[in-house]
Amino acid sequence: MKVEKNSRVAFQGERGAFSEEAALMLLGGEIRLVPCTTLATAFRAVPAGDADYVLAPVENSLAGAVQWSLDLLAESELAICAEVILPIVHNLIAVPGARIEQIRSVESHPVGLAQCERFFHANPLIKRIAAEDTAGSVREIVSAGDPARAAIAGRRAAEIYGGEILREHLEDNPANFTRFFLLAAAPQAASAGTKLSLVFQLPHLPGALYTALEPFARREINLLKIESRPIQGRPWEYRFYLDLQASLGDLEVLEALKELEQHAVQLKILGCYDSVEITGTQTKTGAAGA
Amino acid sequence: MKVEKNSRVAFQGERGAFSEEAALMLLGGEIRLVPCTTLATAFRAVPAGDADYVLAPVENSLAGAVQWSLDLLAESELAICAEVILPIVHNLIAVPGARIEQIRSVESHPVGLAQCERFFHANPLIKRIAAEDTAGSVREIVSAGDPARAAIAGRRAAEIYGGEILREHLEDNPANFTRFFLLAAAPQAASAGTKLSLVFQLPHLPGALYTALEPFARREINLLKIESRPIQGRPWEYRFYLDLQASLGDLEVLEALKELEQHAVQLKILGCYDSVEITGTQTKTGAAGA
Repeated sequence: MKVEKNSRVAFQGERGAFSEEAALMLLGGEIRLVPCTTLATAFRAVPAGDADYVLAPVENSLAGAVQWSLDLLAESELAICAEVILPIVHNLIAVPGARIEQIRSVESHPVGLAQCERFFHANPLIKRIAAEDTAGSVREIVSAGDPARAAIAGRRAAEIYGGEILREHLEDNPANFTRFFLLAAAPQAASAGTKLSLVFQLPHLPGALYTALEPFARREINLLKIESRPIQGRPWEYRFYLDLQASLGDLEVLEALKELEQHAVQLKILGCYDSVEITGTQTKTGAAGA
Repeated sequence: MKVEKNSRVAFQGERGAFSEEAALMLLGGEIRLVPCTTLATAFRAVPAGDADYVLAPVENSLAGAVQWSLDLLAESELAICAEVILPIVHNLIAVPGARIEQIRSVESHPVGLAQCERFFHANPLIKRIAAEDTAGSVREIVSAGDPARAAIAGRRAAEIYGGEILREHLEDNPANFTRFFLLAAAPQAASAGTKLSLVFQLPHLPGALYTALEPFARREINLLKIESRPIQGRPWEYRFYLDLQASLGDLEVLEALKELEQHAVQLKILGCYDSVEITGTQTKTGAAGA
């Protein structure tokens, strides 16, 4: 995707996070990265004038939806400009010169730790320590300089903080991908893509969801994903998120949306965008296996 | 609900966890509690003969689905015997004698911390520290004996570990409830309740989900909740979980299930059960407000 040179892209995490990698793979190296401590801060950076875009994870193919991103997306005034799918490669990273036999503890984001169960089963004496962030845990262990501490993170984090990769491909399941959305203030977002994302609420009636899906099913518009999220303060009531293989340039799609509007409350188009799949990891060779 | 005296009930967390509270409220005081470090361990305790039941959280009315419980439920041989809905009351707990002005850091499960944002906004100098467990963080701070450290957890945790409640109702949103399932080996589970839970997969075709919901919509069987979860190793394919207001004793419901079976793959009935709502918190009076 093309964006203006020096566009500022906010993301959650420290330098070297998977979100940063996704931003650079999608937009190239001439952007300015704006790391934020929380997803909420990243989403606020655009209306506050501190960033032009947000790059936010929305789903991992093993762990499922990133629930907070969906909540923030429904409540924000941002729209989806593009989707990028990044293969997630976990590495065991330590201080330079450390040997794998010296490692006594491994730090990472809980999802990172959970995706490397095989490694921990094979090394039962190594303690796992939950951290806020994959990249941040690399910064921590490198600055501590202790050869007994390691972290699990992407290759970029090792490069940025000067850690050494002791083992590549620590992940249990190679079918590990994360979907990210590139978001911008609504008027800037394009609407000519091949994927369409919506969010809406429904009256609490038998058949309400069935009726909401009907306009798309009748036109054979492919539903790629449905996700439900609680509505704050209204226990056991939900917002529904749909991802469809559909374009806003298609008259049939516009008709289906018009029909949905008759049943749904607070229908909001989140974006119509194209998807970019990153193939080929940045790892040099397949020296893999945990 | 009635269970045999001394029934062993496994749950994730330490003594004093909200799951323990839910188990005692549902089953009374004559059960034996089996605390487990992870949800996976709790689910394995029944087939391993270490417990008769599991009490597992499945949804919080603010945070949404407990995704790992759903995954474990689909893969286990356990069935739902009952549902219990517990109001979640967060308390600020410190070592006895500590004053609120002394507190410098507050520890809890990340979801617990996130549900008490107002308190942290009002007290910007207090550091928030993520812990594995709400109850475990109370045990930690009491055993450390440091009046500058506090934890956020339920009242039971304060009672069990000898902590002092400095402030009740720290939660931002009073509409904070968690749904738990009581699970047992499938043959023991009843099937005469008023709620029905299923899980299934669908072929990747336009209208597949719509077609799957049709047998229920046509019979005006109320869909209470739909949740999708990724299938491991098959990126962007999903399992669907439905909660219906329906009984297996109802012929119409059996017919709808038979129709669903023609479209769905790996359809599994998770249980047909009654729901118990715990009203009245154990807090004595409404001395609330963060």
